Amino acid sequence: MAVNLVPPKPEDLLPVKGAALGVAEAGVRKAERKDLLVLRLAEGASVAGVFTQNRFCAAPVIVCKENLALAQPIRALLVNTGNANAGTGDEGLARARQTCAELAVLLGCKPAQILPFSTGVIMEPLPLERIVAALPRALADCREDNWARAAEAIMTTDTVPKACSRRLSLSGKSVTVTGIAKGAGMIHPDMATMLGFVATDAAVSPAALQRMLALVAARSFNRITVDGDTSTNDSFMLIATGAAGTETITGEKHPDFALLAAAVGEVALRLAQAIIRDGEGATKFITVQVEGGANEAECSKVAYAIAHSPLVKTAFFASDPNLGRLLCAIGYAGIADLDVGRVQLYLDEVQVAKDGGRNPAYREEDGQRVMRQSEITVRVELGRGKAETTLWTCDLSHEYVSINADYRS
Amino acid sequence: MAVNLVPPKPEDLLPVKGAALGVAEAGVRKAERKDLLVLRLAEGASVAGVFTQNRFCAAPVIVCKENLALAQPIRALLVNTGNANAGTGDEGLARARQTCAELAVLLGCKPAQILPFSTGVIMEPLPLERIVAALPRALADCREDNWARAAEAIMTTDTVPKACSRRLSLSGKSVTVTGIAKGAGMIHPDMATMLGFVATDAAVSPAALQRMLALVAARSFNRITVDGDTSTNDSFMLIATGAAGTETITGEKHPDFALLAAAVGEVALRLAQAIIRDGEGATKFITVQVEGGANEAECSKVAYAIAHSPLVKTAFFASDPNLGRLLCAIGYAGIADLDVGRVQLYLDEVQVAKDGGRNPAYREEDGQRVMRQSEITVRVELGRGKAETTLWTCDLSHEYVSINADYRS
Repeated sequence: MAVNLVPPKPEDLLPVKGAALGVAEAGVRKAERKDLLVLRLAEGASVAGVFTQNRFCAAPVIVCKENLALAQPIRALLVNTGNANAGTGDEGLARARQTCAELAVLLGCKPAQILPFSTGVIMEPLPLERIVAALPRALADCREDNWARAAEAIMTTDTVPKACSRRLSLSGKSVTVTGIAKGAGMIHPDMATMLGFVATDAAVSPAALQRMLALVAARSFNRITVDGDTSTNDSFMLIATGAAGTETITGEKHPDFALLAAAVGEVALRLAQAIIRDGEGATKFITVQVEGGANEAECSKVAYAIAHSPLVKTAFFASDPNLGRLLCAIGYAGIADLDVGRVQLYLDEVQVAKDGGRNPAYREEDGQRVMRQSEITVRVELGRGKAETTLWTCDLSHEYVSINADYRS
Repeated sequence: MAVNLVPPKPEDLLPVKGAALGVAEAGVRKAERKDLLVLRLAEGASVAGVFTQNRFCAAPVIVCKENLALAQPIRALLVNTGNANAGTGDEGLARARQTCAELAVLLGCKPAQILPFSTGVIMEPLPLERIVAALPRALADCREDNWARAAEAIMTTDTVPKACSRRLSLSGKSVTVTGIAKGAGMIHPDMATMLGFVATDAAVSPAALQRMLALVAARSFNRITVDGDTSTNDSFMLIATGAAGTETITGEKHPDFALLAAAVGEVALRLAQAIIRDGEGATKFITVQVEGGANEAECSKVAYAIAHSPLVKTAFFASDPNLGRLLCAIGYAGIADLDVGRVQLYLDEVQVAKDGGRNPAYREEDGQRVMRQSEITVRVELGRGKAETTLWTCDLSHEYVSINADYRS
């Protein structure tokens, strides 16, 4: 069902020196599927993360934040699918810490040097013993050219694994950026997506890496929505191993910062858009552009009102240019002093509404033609200023209801 | 598909002295269906209204507000279905005014004494001539015992007409309250529902009537949501004809105010809940109670986060006690300092989550039993204070997608 999204070819995913990945079948929820990933880091790597703003954040999110705050060198990331370890209280927290402790013993490091991640069903106890039993197999599987299998191991309702790579040159040295992500439902990131991991072998100080991550997240994972539900487990991690031997980027003013941020941004945006293309039940990939706002916040309000409206999303599913639903969503987006007489609405290049009413030159067949496409851009001009924003979403189909009515069964 | 909702029996709908209703087939959008309603008022009637907060409010909503502001005695309400006359610019405004002018000629009054209402497809031109041609037939049909046919004439995607009556005694005189409403999708009223009309033959001054309406709307039509979409045309009108000969209620302190407000409130709540029971594709009627909040606003945030979550709504559709989705919605509702360790969650009388985690005594079969019911109460205790709120919503089914993917076709 994914919209114009094909699985990455393993040979297109470039190894990142200093980052090795291993997967295993732990049987967290279902037997005979890879559901455990260990991402080992060489000494000297920097790691930065942004996490969900959901107050019911998962136990592993709490432990990640704690461990990152201790500023110990991170030696491994541990990811399981099938169970989110969220809404599990103190016992969930203890189990998340225990997975770190067990992996630390195997790696000869401290528990605080491990970052745990979980995704799957909420409010079920994490099957600690099965995960611990599978750790040695995942470690034995660790290789730098293992990104494709890692992308598969973190899938839940995803239908296509999500991964991509970029290569760039910093100060004459070749640097690689490779990332993977998972997510298809409960997607309305507020700081990050469900799970995204991007690694580079460039050298970046922790503070500069965190700054780069924030800039990149704001324009990629924080600009997508499938269903308006902000997950309990959202985490987006950026890793810089430094193994390429480049000069360490210590801040935003370093000449390599912008170059690397652009490459990381491309990888993150491609992964974030892949999540929308593989949105649960998605048949259309929708870009929502809002321009001419007084500030970016009000542009976002309008863009999300459109992207969250079930009526707009079902109209896209039906390829029905029932475009009054778009005006309706703009109207209730929460701009109290919006002068609707200045609003223009476009579907790709077709102007649907002019000065707040139906464009006299608009012909239904033009709207119909655009609506039939698998990729559509909705563009709104508010006529209030110069701010703008862009986000990406998908339609709402029968399949979304089926997937989410059946997910646990 | 409606949940425990049967059509009202015509004999249960009590006439309101001083209010006569007539319907006709105008062919606004489809042939051979009653799509026009005139509600004529005797001299001396008071009328109060609350309207959508959507900035793209429909032309008839603008004209209603203008005419009410002129404080002329209102002589008739004119309602059409099939076309919302919204997103139609100046031409739409001119056509709404023209319908008032034509009816005013027939009634021998001023155009400002008519209130127009439209519901249906947005951004299509109102077929003025067909409506005007049908006005004499609607007038010829006017009778005080015509509420059942009026409830049918205002339906769009509704599957069941919505109407009910209450009788009470004020100062020894018998008074009647009867109301009708329509709405099934694009339901997330922000001041009012799509269309609701409640009339009484008690005597109430315009100012007291407006106050009563605001109190009633806050606890009925403003407490329901189907899909989170606030319509362009929401209007909820309260009419007091005074024909019962009771003493005029001139303000909130009048001894009859509370009695009448309670009866009007019962009628409005029943109509509002009927809209949810007949929500597009609804198979479950869900009551969401949030208690223990620091204030009512934060209780509402949590209640609406639950009621709007597609993941929660599909879990109800599937009768799947995937209750972590409820915790997740509570977590992202926007209470920044929520201490999740104090949150309790109940499904009817079954305690699902205790102190923010799974209740150790919770058994899946208990949750499953409640989820199979057609009527379910979700109760959240926030542990922050004494404020509370209640709202009503329905599940999200395949049928919702079908209805809204096909609505215009």
